[in-house]
Amino acid sequence: MKALTYHGPGRRTWGGDVPDPVVRDPEDAVVRVDAVTICGTDLHILRGDVPEVTQGRILGHEAVGTVTETGPGVRTVAVGDRVLISCISACGRCAYCRAGTYGQCTGGGGWILGHLIDGCQAEYVRTPFADSSLHKLPEGVTDEDALLLADILPTSYEVGVRNGRVGPGDTVAIVGAGPIGLAAIITAHLYSPSRIIAVDLARSRLDAAERFGADTVLTTAEATPEAVRELSRDGLGADVAIEAVGVPETFELCARLVRPGGRVANVGVHGKPAVLHLEDLWIRDVTITTGLVDTHSTPLLLDMLAVGRLDVSGLVTHRFGLDEMQDAYDVFADAGDTGALKVALFRT
Amino acid sequence: MKALTYHGPGRRTWGGDVPDPVVRDPEDAVVRVDAVTICGTDLHILRGDVPEVTQGRILGHEAVGTVTETGPGVRTVAVGDRVLISCISACGRCAYCRAGTYGQCTGGGGWILGHLIDGCQAEYVRTPFADSSLHKLPEGVTDEDALLLADILPTSYEVGVRNGRVGPGDTVAIVGAGPIGLAAIITAHLYSPSRIIAVDLARSRLDAAERFGADTVLTTAEATPEAVRELSRDGLGADVAIEAVGVPETFELCARLVRPGGRVANVGVHGKPAVLHLEDLWIRDVTITTGLVDTHSTPLLLDMLAVGRLDVSGLVTHRFGLDEMQDAYDVFADAGDTGALKVALFRT
Repeated sequence: MKALTYHGPGRRTWGGDVPDPVVRDPEDAVVRVDAVTICGTDLHILRGDVPEVTQGRILGHEAVGTVTETGPGVRTVAVGDRVLISCISACGRCAYCRAGTYGQCTGGGGWILGHLIDGCQAEYVRTPFADSSLHKLPEGVTDEDALLLADILPTSYEVGVRNGRVGPGDTVAIVGAGPIGLAAIITAHLYSPSRIIAVDLARSRLDAAERFGADTVLTTAEATPEAVRELSRDGLGADVAIEAVGVPETFELCARLVRPGGRVANVGVHGKPAVLHLEDLWIRDVTITTGLVDTHSTPLLLDMLAVGRLDVSGLVTHRFGLDEMQDAYDVFADAGDTGALKVALFRT
Repeated sequence: MKALTYHGPGRRTWGGDVPDPVVRDPEDAVVRVDAVTICGTDLHILRGDVPEVTQGRILGHEAVGTVTETGPGVRTVAVGDRVLISCISACGRCAYCRAGTYGQCTGGGGWILGHLIDGCQAEYVRTPFADSSLHKLPEGVTDEDALLLADILPTSYEVGVRNGRVGPGDTVAIVGAGPIGLAAIITAHLYSPSRIIAVDLARSRLDAAERFGADTVLTTAEATPEAVRELSRDGLGADVAIEAVGVPETFELCARLVRPGGRVANVGVHGKPAVLHLEDLWIRDVTITTGLVDTHSTPLLLDMLAVGRLDVSGLVTHRFGLDEMQDAYDVFADAGDTGALKVALFRT
């Protein structure tokens, strides 16, 4: 089959010299990939920032497909089922899985697809722990919409909005208006905040943030603590700041934007340490959270899509055939110029 | 009256040339100080680390006394009442006070005694917002025991144990076994953790930690992540790490000791930034909290003292007459040699 393979920093190939995956464990399924996307994390891998990813690895952890084979231990999905391939696999048995924190699975799951095992930027993919890692798609949900629930929607919702405890009336600052930041705007609205302030370097992303429901947009230069305090309900700052970039500067900005008692929810994937100004923060009742998505919210979000309570339209900006994988990578990597948010590739 | 006055870094006097405090606002009370203690924060002030404290300020924010005068707006305490003078004053009217977060009071309260207004290391002290800042002492609670509830017990309980969400069965690492760390051991036990590991540089403090209920004590050199993982229930690390020192190294140690999904509760007063290793932490579901005590738990803890459900004996190691204030400071500042935990000074 054809697949997108990583060959060390800066080197990727798309080609047909890759063996078809097969069931290796009784709980595996093999899924034909009908739609797949590229994550900012894949670009991190290609920059060499994620050393666990070895040469020869097929990338990709966000897809929708059709089950073509199941192991004898698989009970909840069957050949022919349309399924969401979640970025998180779950053994279902370890203490973390039993607590619903599948992202921290110690039984062989967690974020493994396109990371520790071959991923889904391919014609077919083997998915371990199929019962607890695949999600059957409800009727009426399109592949393209479901694709956004493989990673970015549950990530922004669980790690940003819920960890940050966004609540009614809150002032929420979202730093970074890429796909994750935009998904945070969409899912923050589920908790009825009064003011969402989006911050980004790029005007095109701030325009997108306004379309997705930011009340105010600020360039990074404009996003001073004073400016955010002035926009907050009583001049004290943001209740919640969501970090959706992954560099020290934006994390440190979030810590400056929150009011006493505020929450900083880090969503970004970081490669470097940040400075934590405890000399200011120790007295301010600030909570900082980090996290990998657990995807415990994925079934809920899928149902919200099915019943029309979640609108993700507009997040996919560029569509490709699966064979145009390399072009899709180029367009996504050059988002500053192409205006790409999410790219989607479909089986042709 | 006599009082301990700050005259800039390194300079304190105890003397009788200070005017007696009087009621200035209808909600003020004046309290005769019957017992008072010294806080590590007072030593910070004397090192010049707290620049808001101006020369001529009377220090002290932890005392027990007898009301000698009340303003016409005071309703819940009367002349002759024995009261706890809490380190936190509360206007009772601002949004933070209405939410029970008195430490962040924006109406003129918060930590003001011995900081922004004259404190209680004196024969008498004026206490603003008397109704919401003084606590009448229950029958049978001694001055010495109550004194420990002016700051350290509620601080360790609220900012350490409750912010860190210590729960049944948890492995709790408490870094720093001074008075705050020991109070964290005492109050962590209220939530039935399975393993409390205390960490300190000084053997004398580790001995104290064992007396107060630490299951294991480790010197700072011994407290590696590997050692703490080995002591935890399943080899993954501490559920909660409580920082009770206030320097970057101990905060950074706490961040290394917690398991995925763990909590770091900072209690220490910091003067410098720390390094936050987001490159490790982003994926580990870690929660970090900071905070100033609100003292919302003070009435509860007082009742627990009264009914014998809270044992604070042993925390006061050295007792003085009020006139021995300078000696008490010397003994407390030299805790490494004197073995002092809390010092208590009594009216003679």
